[in-house]
Formats: sequence, structure tokens, C-alpha cells
Amino acid sequence: MKNSPDSFPISPHIAASLERAEADPVIDETTGLQQAQLLRLQLLKAQYAHLRRANQALLIVIAGIDGVGKGRCINLLNEWMDARYVHTLAFGEPEAPASLMPPLWRYWQHMPAKGTTGIVFGSWYRPLFELLKKKRPDWKQVEAVTHAIRDFETTLSRNGVQVVKLWFHMSKQAQQAHIDGLLANPETAWQVESLDFKVRKKFDRARRAGAVAMSLTHEPRIPWQIVPSAHDLYRVISTAQAVLKGLRKRPSSTWRPVYPFCSEPPVSLSCISPVSLDGIDFSVKLKKADYQNQLPVLQGRLARMLRDTRFKNRSLVLVFEGQDAAGKGGAIRRITAALDARQYRAIPISAPTDEERARPYLWRFWRRLPKPGRIAIFDRSWYGRVLVERVESFIEPLQWEHAYDEINQFEQQMIDNGAIVIKFWLAITKEEQLERFHARRKSPFKSFKITPEDWRNRRKWDAYWVATNDMLGRTHTSLGPWHLVSANDKHHARITVLETVLARLETEFRGAG
Amino acid sequence: MKNSPDSFPISPHIAASLERAEADPVIDETTGLQQAQLLRLQLLKAQYAHLRRANQALLIVIAGIDGVGKGRCINLLNEWMDARYVHTLAFGEPEAPASLMPPLWRYWQHMPAKGTTGIVFGSWYRPLFELLKKKRPDWKQVEAVTHAIRDFETTLSRNGVQVVKLWFHMSKQAQQAHIDGLLANPETAWQVESLDFKVRKKFDRARRAGAVAMSLTHEPRIPWQIVPSAHDLYRVISTAQAVLKGLRKRPSSTWRPVYPFCSEPPVSLSCISPVSLDGIDFSVKLKKADYQNQLPVLQGRLARMLRDTRFKNRSLVLVFEGQDAAGKGGAIRRITAALDARQYRAIPISAPTDEERARPYLWRFWRRLPKPGRIAIFDRSWYGRVLVERVESFIEPLQWEHAYDEINQFEQQMIDNGAIVIKFWLAITKEEQLERFHARRKSPFKSFKITPEDWRNRRKWDAYWVATNDMLGRTHTSLGPWHLVSANDKHHARITVLETVLARLETEFRGAG
Repeated sequence: MKNSPDSFPISPHIAASLERAEADPVIDETTGLQQAQLLRLQLLKAQYAHLRRANQALLIVIAGIDGVGKGRCINLLNEWMDARYVHTLAFGEPEAPASLMPPLWRYWQHMPAKGTTGIVFGSWYRPLFELLKKKRPDWKQVEAVTHAIRDFETTLSRNGVQVVKLWFHMSKQAQQAHIDGLLANPETAWQVESLDFKVRKKFDRARRAGAVAMSLTHEPRIPWQIVPSAHDLYRVISTAQAVLKGLRKRPSSTWRPVYPFCSEPPVSLSCISPVSLDGIDFSVKLKKADYQNQLPVLQGRLARMLRDTRFKNRSLVLVFEGQDAAGKGGAIRRITAALDARQYRAIPISAPTDEERARPYLWRFWRRLPKPGRIAIFDRSWYGRVLVERVESFIEPLQWEHAYDEINQFEQQMIDNGAIVIKFWLAITKEEQLERFHARRKSPFKSFKITPEDWRNRRKWDAYWVATNDMLGRTHTSLGPWHLVSANDKHHARITVLETVLARLETEFRGAG
Repeated sequence: MKNSPDSFPISPHIAASLERAEADPVIDETTGLQQAQLLRLQLLKAQYAHLRRANQALLIVIAGIDGVGKGRCINLLNEWMDARYVHTLAFGEPEAPASLMPPLWRYWQHMPAKGTTGIVFGSWYRPLFELLKKKRPDWKQVEAVTHAIRDFETTLSRNGVQVVKLWFHMSKQAQQAHIDGLLANPETAWQVESLDFKVRKKFDRARRAGAVAMSLTHEPRIPWQIVPSAHDLYRVISTAQAVLKGLRKRPSSTWRPVYPFCSEPPVSLSCISPVSLDGIDFSVKLKKADYQNQLPVLQGRLARMLRDTRFKNRSLVLVFEGQDAAGKGGAIRRITAALDARQYRAIPISAPTDEERARPYLWRFWRRLPKPGRIAIFDRSWYGRVLVERVESFIEPLQWEHAYDEINQFEQQMIDNGAIVIKFWLAITKEEQLERFHARRKSPFKSFKITPEDWRNRRKWDAYWVATNDMLGRTHTSLGPWHLVSANDKHHARITVLETVLARLETEFRGAG
């Protein structure tokens, strides 16, 4: 039943807006030009205010039926606004490297900085439209794609990217007349050139796909706005008004989305039985001789496994978290020693650069995701959002509260794309940390590594402990589980890390036949 | 004669260093461990000082005969230094998008930030080594590749990237023994796995290629250092010493390279008869009616040309420079109005981000070069180096003096890769600028565009005039010529720009048959 397109839900609001646009409204020239004049000024003022506040970016999604002047309208926006802060982001069929990465990767790569505006052609809606244009769309697929879009837009909106979604629309007759008009004039015919001529025949199907897609993804804070496009001046004014509204909207990091026509997403990465720092046995030890015997054997196995052809289409993402001085660097070096330098990248996470600060916190990790066949080793990671940023009150409680979902969704996308995600928490006791701090102070090689900040963090030991246990509970998922490593004994910790990686790779490769 | 490898020049210094390495020197364990201990501390100290100064990056090129422990040595560097600021950059055969871009593009993409260290495997020397390993290397090709390397390293070294080049070496017998040793132990055999087993047979040819390549590219400030590698401890100490020297070396932006074994490069992009602002006729005008008739015709032609299949393997780089208020933005919009939004990117250049400031000034342009089939439109450009940075004394005279060559070489690389580079200088008179400033102040749409900085720049009109004429004289090349556009009349300027682009595309396409 659900596979019949007519049974798909359509929001009355969207239906009414489409019908209004199909009445092909016009505006008289005198009123229209006055309004346009005023809007132009307001847009420019709002743009500069937006730039000065620099607390959010604007991302304008361009969609709608074909051949109705979307491109020209956007050129006009570029003319009205200060074009230096407006970027047109146009996406066709994904090519390498985008085609090798999760579908949303390329949109993340081109995320506009706070204070600027991005105009997106060929947005993340394209797969949804394509699905819905089919004779019998697969409802399950439609729901999956819808949830991915919903999660993406929610994450953006909560993290300083205001999304404005425009659907350019007109009646079937007006579309026909519009295309004929362009074709009749040799000076404008080129605008139609790249257009599929069958478009005119496909009006009904495109309209239905749009109506369903918009109904499923219409959210009061991230609404679809339908731009009646038959009349040039009317279209221009409607677009400018929508953009103006977007520029003026204040960011909110605490809002919760309401999608009346979209079912609640399934809990995609289900949290498995929670793990906790409280259960760790800190007494485990490994003798130095055993360590020295086992290390080269495990490294040899790891080296061979990551040169295995079954790894060609996979990638490996290792996350290392843990208290200061827990031995993350040492454990990482015992892994990299076995790797081909061409295959991996070790990524230390400290203060973000200004390009990173100007974008949602996940951007700096999206830009560093490994390609298939590659390994990324994060020395601290996106979990900083729910650890240091929470404990230091850099963000509001609702922001780190939301971050658990955002992080799970982020990891889900990597995993869906073939990444093997392994997360380690290296745990030491407070006493052990103190000993290591003192030892570092005395060691000529390590005294550089200890800073006043380490001592400050140490004073917040208990707050970190609570934040860590919350994090472990909320992000310990079946495909991205945490591995708690008792790390008071470095030998034990390093061997455990290597064994865990090997065991996981073996499981994954066994699955690959 | 020159095609016989034995006639290729070899520097006596390089020859002697290779011979010293082939004596397979050792160091006794007590002395060696003491030295290593000391070096480790010095390295770490030097690294932190380097990081604090943050006035240059270190780029370590790893080369040498195969199977002599280069990888392990680098792992050790990672262990000795603070690995958070050391990045291993390993390059194999270029894949898309690197394979579509100029050969050095990928090295520019991964340029380490000031204060950090990059270790390069698979460096820009690989093509040179490959050429020289041939039975009868083509001397002309060898020279061309050598000059490209020389220019690249000179540009880096003058712009805050210290290049340290290491050649790992040992005798043929030692290499044989070393590989046999690794193979004999099942725990280390994997290290040889990826190695070409014929390597041992190729010792002589690899040695000769290295000797010639190093002789051609050995420069006192960017020297090759040969690391005797037969004895583990000796190798480690030599490497650490070389890196330490690099970390301690102070940057110089004024030095001139001396390559005794490398001929002077041909003036690759020859400057054609100089153009100058002084010859411009500012009285030319185009009637509004003519403008309105011609504009859509030219835009239509441009649209069709850039959709031509002959453009698929080319790219278009448009550079717009000119005085403030010369009408760059308006001219650019008249071009973009004809373009497919998916094809082009307009790139306004203002203050660099901190990621950009941490790298040579050309980096921000390298990272924005268009792929084949794409268009990049720069609203201001790399010419800022010899305009604003010169006039405002942000840099030393020798720095902008060197920049002319650096810029010509940069453009040459784009052009060699198929880019069509068109550079516009939009020229207005001082009186016209004043009028436009006043008009902007009064216009509700343009008052935002005028800032105190514009008035400050205006007071330096004459200094800019001189700098511009120098720039035009030094960078007006046959393949990257400047087009001086009389821009007191906006209509004339916009039509001239469009006509110039069209004429150039026609010439280029005619060449393509």
C-alpha cells in the first residue's frame, strides 16, 4: 500500500503552497519595483549584520521543477548581496574522491563559514527526489534517506548553520511557455541547452516527488518555502524575502525538531549494554619479557592484515581518548610502527583553527576522514564535545546533550560507507596520573609534555569521570563500541589495544568472506 | 654525448659522501647511546623552540636506496619528537584529483603549517630518479624536471618552509645483508614484503640516479645530506643530527640559490613587450544602447564556448585586479551570468585565514586551483604579494622582488597543465575613483562597500601606480599576458573583458583542432 505514491503523506500546508504557486501570481511593476528596491537594501543590511555577528552561516538549498529561472534568480541574489560572502556550491554526480566517501561528505567539505552564505545546487535532496520520481518508490528507502536528511539538517541548524530551502514552482502551462520563450530567442536558448527536454513531460511526477519530499522534511525551523516563479519580478521578490528571513533568524542550539510527516527515526546505532569506568580492574599487569615477545608478533600480524586485499574497500578509524598521561601517544606509536607510512595519518586534536571554529564542530573531523584503504588515528577526537567542552562549560548543557546523537549519526555514516571504527578509552587511576606527572616533570624528555593545563584538568578529575561515564553509556554502540583499556600498566595497555584491533579486523574480514 | 649517463655531472662532495656511507661506518654502543640520549633531548628542545617561534615549517624529504630502514628511522623520529607536530606525508602514484592537477599540486595541498614538521615519502624527486634510472636518460627532460624542483624548493625556502633532504645509503653488500636479515625473521619479513625484490640487483643504477639527482639539486641552503645506514645506531644518530640542524636553521627570505651543477633555467615564461598604466586611453566609451545589445550576444557565445567539449580537459583561471572601485565585481558578474553555476567558483581574496597565514602565500591559491573543465575567477589574487604587501611594507623589498619569478613559475605550472590564464587590470583615473567613492557613499546599496581603508589606499595612489607598472612589466608573459582595461566607462570595460575572454578561448580552441 505504502509503495503506491498516492498513499504517501502530503502536508496540507505544502499542498496549498504548491497550488498557490500554480495560480502563477504576478505583481504589478510599480509596486514590485518599489518592493524590490526596498528588499535589496534590507538584504544588504541584513547580510552585513549577519557578517558582523558571525555566529552562523546561511545555507540556501535550491530545488524545484526545471527550467523556471532558478539560475538567473541566484545570479540576481549575487548582484544584490555582497558577492564576496556568497558562494554558489553546485554539485553534480559525485566524482572521486566524493564518490568514495559517505554521501554527505562533499556537503561537509564545502560548509560555508559563519557570516557567509552558501547557495546549494544539487543538494542532499537529489537522491530523495530521484527515489520519489519512480513509479513505485520504495517506502523503506524513502524513510531511510529522509531520516539521514533530517539528522543532517538538525545537526547543522543546532551548530550554527541556518538552512533555507526554496522550491521554485509554477503551473505546467507557465513552465511550457517559459521554456518556449527561452528557446525562441537565440541569445537565451543556451540557458535551456543543458536542460532535459523531456522535463516538460515530467511535470506531474516532479511535482509529486517534490510535494512528498517537502512534506517529509518540512520543519518549522527549517521550513520549505515555495517560490511562485512564473512572473520574474514576483519570483525575485519571493526569493529575496525568503533569504532575508534566513539572514535575520537567530541561531538556536537547543531546539528540537518537529516533523509531523516523518516517522521517528529508528535508533540506528543502538547503544549496547553500557560500559563504565567504575568496573575497571586497574591491577592487571603484563611482564616486560612477555610484552617484548608479543609486541613484534602482533605488529607483524597487523601489518599483514592491513595489506590484505580485503582492506582495499574498507577504512579504519581509530579513536584514542583517556585521561591526561594515560599513554595514548605510546599506544598509537606501537600501532603506527607496524603501518606503511603511506596508509595512515595520525591526527592530534587540540585547539581548532579559525577555519574550524567558523563551522560546526564535526567539520574538522569530516575533513579528515580516511579514504578507502586508509587509516586515520585520532589522538583525541569529536568526543571532546562531550568531555572538555562539557566539563569546561564551553557549551550549553543541551548542546552536549544533543552531541551524543550527532556523534552516533556521524559514526553511522562512516560505518555505512565501509569504515571500521574502533574507540579506545585508556583509563588510569588518579594516583597513577600523579605519579606520571611527577615522572614527566623529572624526565628531560617528557618535562615538555606537562603543562599547567594538565594540573588544572586534574583538579576536575571527578567531573571528567562523570562526563566519561555518560559518554560511554550514550555512544557505546554495536558497530562503534568503546574498548575500555586498563592502562596503569603500559605494557598491558599497548598489547590490549593491538589485540583489540586485530580481533576486530579478523571479525570484519571473516564477514567479507 | 649528454645522453650517456656517465657524462652527467656528479658533484665531488656528493661522490665523497656516498663513498663515506659505503664504508658502512659504525659507532660503538656506549658512545652511540650517550650521543643518542643527548640528541633526543636536543631534538625535543629544538622542536618546541621551533613551534614557539612558528616562523617556519620543516619539510624532510626521505630518499635513498631501498630496504635500508628509512621507515623505521622515521618511526623513531616520531618517538623522539612530539608526534603531535610531526606529520608523515606519503605519496604514491597520483590518483584523482591529484592526477588531474599540476604535478606539484599535491605537495602544496599537504604543506605543513609553520611550527610543524612534515616527513615526505614519495617526494617530488621521484620523477627525476625515475628518469635517471633509465639506460639513456633524456638530458633535456632531466634539466626541465630539475629546474621545476629547484624553483619549488627555492620558493618554499624563501617563504618559511625549510627543506631537509636525506639520502639513506650503505654499501651493496650491507644492503644485501640487511634485507636477508629482515627476511630471515618471520616477525620482520613483512617489512620487506612491499619491497621490489629486484632492488638488490638495481643497486648500481639507483646509486647513479641518486648521485646525479643530488648533484643537480644540492644547494648550500637546501643541501642533500647522506645518512650512512648500515649500522642502526649510526643511522639514527645521523638522521637526528640532520633534523636538528634543520630545526635550528633560521629562515631567510632574501637568499639566492647557487646550484653549481645545474644550468640556469631558461626564462620559461618570457616577458613580452611591457605594458604600462601610462598608455591607457581613459576617454573610450560605449553607449548604453550598444552595451545592452552586445552583452547578451557575448554572454551567449561565452556560455556555448564553455560548454564545448574542447573545454573538458582545460580549465580557465581569470584574474581580476585594479584600483578600488574600478568595477571588478561588476565585470565578474557579467561573466558569471553566462556560466553554469556548477562550473565556476568566484574567489574573493581578502585577509588570509590563520591556516593560510601559517603557509607560503601561494598556498591559498594552490588550494583553490580549478580542476579540468572548471573555472576559477579571482577577485584580487596572488598579485597582492607585489601590490598591497609591497606598498604597505608587509614584506621586505627582496621578498616582493622574488615574488615576480615565483608568480610566473606558479602560472607556468597551471598553464603546462592545460589552464587558460587570463589576467585583467581594470584601470580608472584618480578623479573617476573619487567620484565613485562619493557615489557609493550616497547610494543605499553601495555605502556598505566603502570603508576607511579605501580612503587610506587612495592616499597611496602613486605608490600603487608604481607597483602596478612594475608588476605589469615583470609578469606580462606570452602565455599569461595582462589585459589592461580602460574602465572609467563601465560599459566599455565589461564588454572588453567579455570580448577578451572570448577571443582567447577561440585562439586556444583553434589550437586544439
